Amino acid sequence: MPEVITAVYEITADDPAARAKLVAVEQSHELPTELAPANAVRDSLAHVRSVVPRAGRPALATVEYPVDLAGGEIGQLLVLLLGNVSLQDGVRLVEVDLPPSLTARLPGPRLGIAGVRALAGEPERALLATALKPVGMTSGQLAGLAYELAAGGLHVIKEDQGLADQPWAPFAERVPRIAAAIRRANGDSGGRSVYLPCVNGSEGQIALARAAGAHGVLVMPGIAGFAALARAAELFPGGLVLAHPSFLGGFTAAAGHGMAPDVLFGTVLRAAGADATIFPSWGGRFSFTRGQCLAIADAARRPLHGMRPALPTPGGGMTIARAPELLDAYGPDTLFLVGGDLRRGDDPRAAAERLVAATR
Amino acid sequence: MPEVITAVYEITADDPAARAKLVAVEQSHELPTELAPANAVRDSLAHVRSVVPRAGRPALATVEYPVDLAGGEIGQLLVLLLGNVSLQDGVRLVEVDLPPSLTARLPGPRLGIAGVRALAGEPERALLATALKPVGMTSGQLAGLAYELAAGGLHVIKEDQGLADQPWAPFAERVPRIAAAIRRANGDSGGRSVYLPCVNGSEGQIALARAAGAHGVLVMPGIAGFAALARAAELFPGGLVLAHPSFLGGFTAAAGHGMAPDVLFGTVLRAAGADATIFPSWGGRFSFTRGQCLAIADAARRPLHGMRPALPTPGGGMTIARAPELLDAYGPDTLFLVGGDLRRGDDPRAAAERLVAATR
Repeated sequence: MPEVITAVYEITADDPAARAKLVAVEQSHELPTELAPANAVRDSLAHVRSVVPRAGRPALATVEYPVDLAGGEIGQLLVLLLGNVSLQDGVRLVEVDLPPSLTARLPGPRLGIAGVRALAGEPERALLATALKPVGMTSGQLAGLAYELAAGGLHVIKEDQGLADQPWAPFAERVPRIAAAIRRANGDSGGRSVYLPCVNGSEGQIALARAAGAHGVLVMPGIAGFAALARAAELFPGGLVLAHPSFLGGFTAAAGHGMAPDVLFGTVLRAAGADATIFPSWGGRFSFTRGQCLAIADAARRPLHGMRPALPTPGGGMTIARAPELLDAYGPDTLFLVGGDLRRGDDPRAAAERLVAATR
Repeated sequence: MPEVITAVYEITADDPAARAKLVAVEQSHELPTELAPANAVRDSLAHVRSVVPRAGRPALATVEYPVDLAGGEIGQLLVLLLGNVSLQDGVRLVEVDLPPSLTARLPGPRLGIAGVRALAGEPERALLATALKPVGMTSGQLAGLAYELAAGGLHVIKEDQGLADQPWAPFAERVPRIAAAIRRANGDSGGRSVYLPCVNGSEGQIALARAAGAHGVLVMPGIAGFAALARAAELFPGGLVLAHPSFLGGFTAAAGHGMAPDVLFGTVLRAAGADATIFPSWGGRFSFTRGQCLAIADAARRPLHGMRPALPTPGGGMTIARAPELLDAYGPDTLFLVGGDLRRGDDPRAAAERLVAATR
C-alpha cells in the first residue's frame, strides 16, 4: 500500500457517491477507468475511501491519492487536489492530510514563527504589522511614513499590495529609500522593525530588495504563482516571506466551490513556503467567520510532520480598539496587521505606540 | 484627463452605489478617501462612473481606474481589477476595457493565431489538439501514443496537466522521447504536428523542453502565476504558449464572485501572453454555457489595439461526433481539444484520422 494524500470534499449532488468517483477520476488519470493503462491502474489510481451523507448539508467524500501523483511539487499537489474540479459545480475541498514523505519534499516556511521572532527581536509577545499605503504617495512620503511607524514600535512594516512599479514611487527608487528610513528608525529607537517590499515575483525585484537592506518580501501567490513563495525564500536567504491573499478569494468565497479558507490560507500557503500568511479576519470588511479565521490560524501553526509553523496574519479592517479581543482569540503567536486605523489623525507614530500598548 | 482602465462589476447589495464606491476605494488607495494624500487624490484615485440598477439582477457598476495604477504589469492589473475584492461577497467583474497605452506594455500573444498556424503548417482549416494521458503511463508508452496521434494528423499534441515529474515518466526522460516520436511521425507523414510538454513554470523545464525539440509549452497560470505565460514565451522564442485552466475555476464558478469566464479566459490570459487558451466547452463535464464559451472565443480573438489574437481552445468532454456542431459554432480560427474520445478502441491513430475527417 503506497502512501496517500487524503482529501475530503463536500459534495453537493443527487448521487454523492457517483460524483465522488468522478472527482477521483478527474483529478488523477482523467479518463474512463477502463481506458487507463495497466500500470496506471495499479499505481496511480485515486480512489474514494468513504462517502458520508449528511442531512441538509453536502455529503463528505474522502478521496485518497497515491502520493507520487503530486510529484513532490506544491503546484502539482494543487493540480491534483482541485485543478480541474475547480471548474465544476458542487465540489469543495475542506480538508487535506499530507503524508510525511510529501511534506519533507515541499518547501514549508524557511524561518517559521521562531525565525520571524528572531528577525524582529520579539521572543514572546504578539507581533504587530502595518501596511505602507496608499498607492499615489511618493517615495519620500512613504519613507517618511515608514520611519514614523517603525519608530512607533511595530515589528513589521510591509508595503501595500497596491504598490508596484508605478510612476509616483517606482520600485527601484522607493525600496532603498524606505529601507534606509527603517534603518534610521531602528537606530534611533533601538528597535528591530522589519521592512517587506511588495514584489511581483520577478528575480530582479527580489534581488534589489535584498541589496537595498529590506528584511524579506511580500508575495502574492494568487498572482505570482504558488511556487513564487519558495523561490523568494531561495533568492533572499534569511528573508521573511509574507503571503498576501490578493486574487485568492475566488477559491474560498462561495460554498460548493473551491476550498475551505483554512486549507488555502493555512495548509497550502504554509506548505508552499510562507513564513506568515495574511488573511481577512472577521469583523472587518471581508466575509470570513470567526470559526474560519481560527481554523486558518490552527492550520498555519499545528504540528505537520516537522514542517515549521507559519505565522497567522489576520488583517482587513482591524483596529486598535479590537486588539485585546483579537489577541485573546488568536494568542500571541500571531502577526496582527492593522492598516487604516493607524492613519486616523496626523501622528502615525503615536497611533503605532497606542497599538503596541493595547497588546501588552 | 489621464487614460483609464474601465471595469464593469455586477454588484449584489442593498445600496449598489455605496458598494461600488467601496470597491473603487478598496481596489485603489484602500483607505478612507479623506486619508489619501493630495497627490494620490489628484492622480491615482479610482472613481465610479455609473451604477445601473437592474430589476431582479445585480446592478452594473462601472469603475474607472487611472491607467498608471496598473504599473504596466499584468499582475498589478489583476490586483487592481479584483485583488482584494475577490475576498468579498457580492462583486463580480464582468467586463474590462484596456486603453492602448496599457495593451502596448502588456505581453500579449507572441505568435497569435497566424503564428500558430505557421508553426503547425495549417493556413486556414480548424486546428486540432489532443492530450497525452493519463498520468501513470511510462515515457515509452507516452511516446508511442504521441507517434500515433501525430501520424493521425492532429496539429497539436499537448501533455495532460496531470503530467509533472512523477516516477512513472520523469520530465527529463519523457520530454526528449516524446519530442523524438513526434519528429519521427512528422517525417513519416509529412505533417507538422506540434508537441507541447506540461511545465511547472520553472526555467529549467522550459529550457529542457526547447532543447529537446518541443514546439512550445503548456503552462497553468492558476498555479504558476500569470506572469509565467510571458516568461515562457521569453525563454522559448518562437514557441507556442498554451494556457491550461487548472485551478482557475474559483474565479468563474459562482455568481456574485470572481469574474465572467470571457474576462478571465479571453481578455486576461490573452493579455498575459497565451497564444492559445484552453477552457471547458459546453455540453461536456463542466459548467459553462454556450453563450459564455462563445464570449470567451470572442474576447480571445477580437481587435484589441493591435494586440495579437489568441486561439480559443475549447476542451473538456469534446467528442468526434460533436466536431461539426462545434466547428460551426466557433469557426475555423479555433484549436479544438479532444481527449478521451480519441482513446476509445485501441487505435488512436485511426481515431485521430476520424477527427480530422469530421472537421473537413
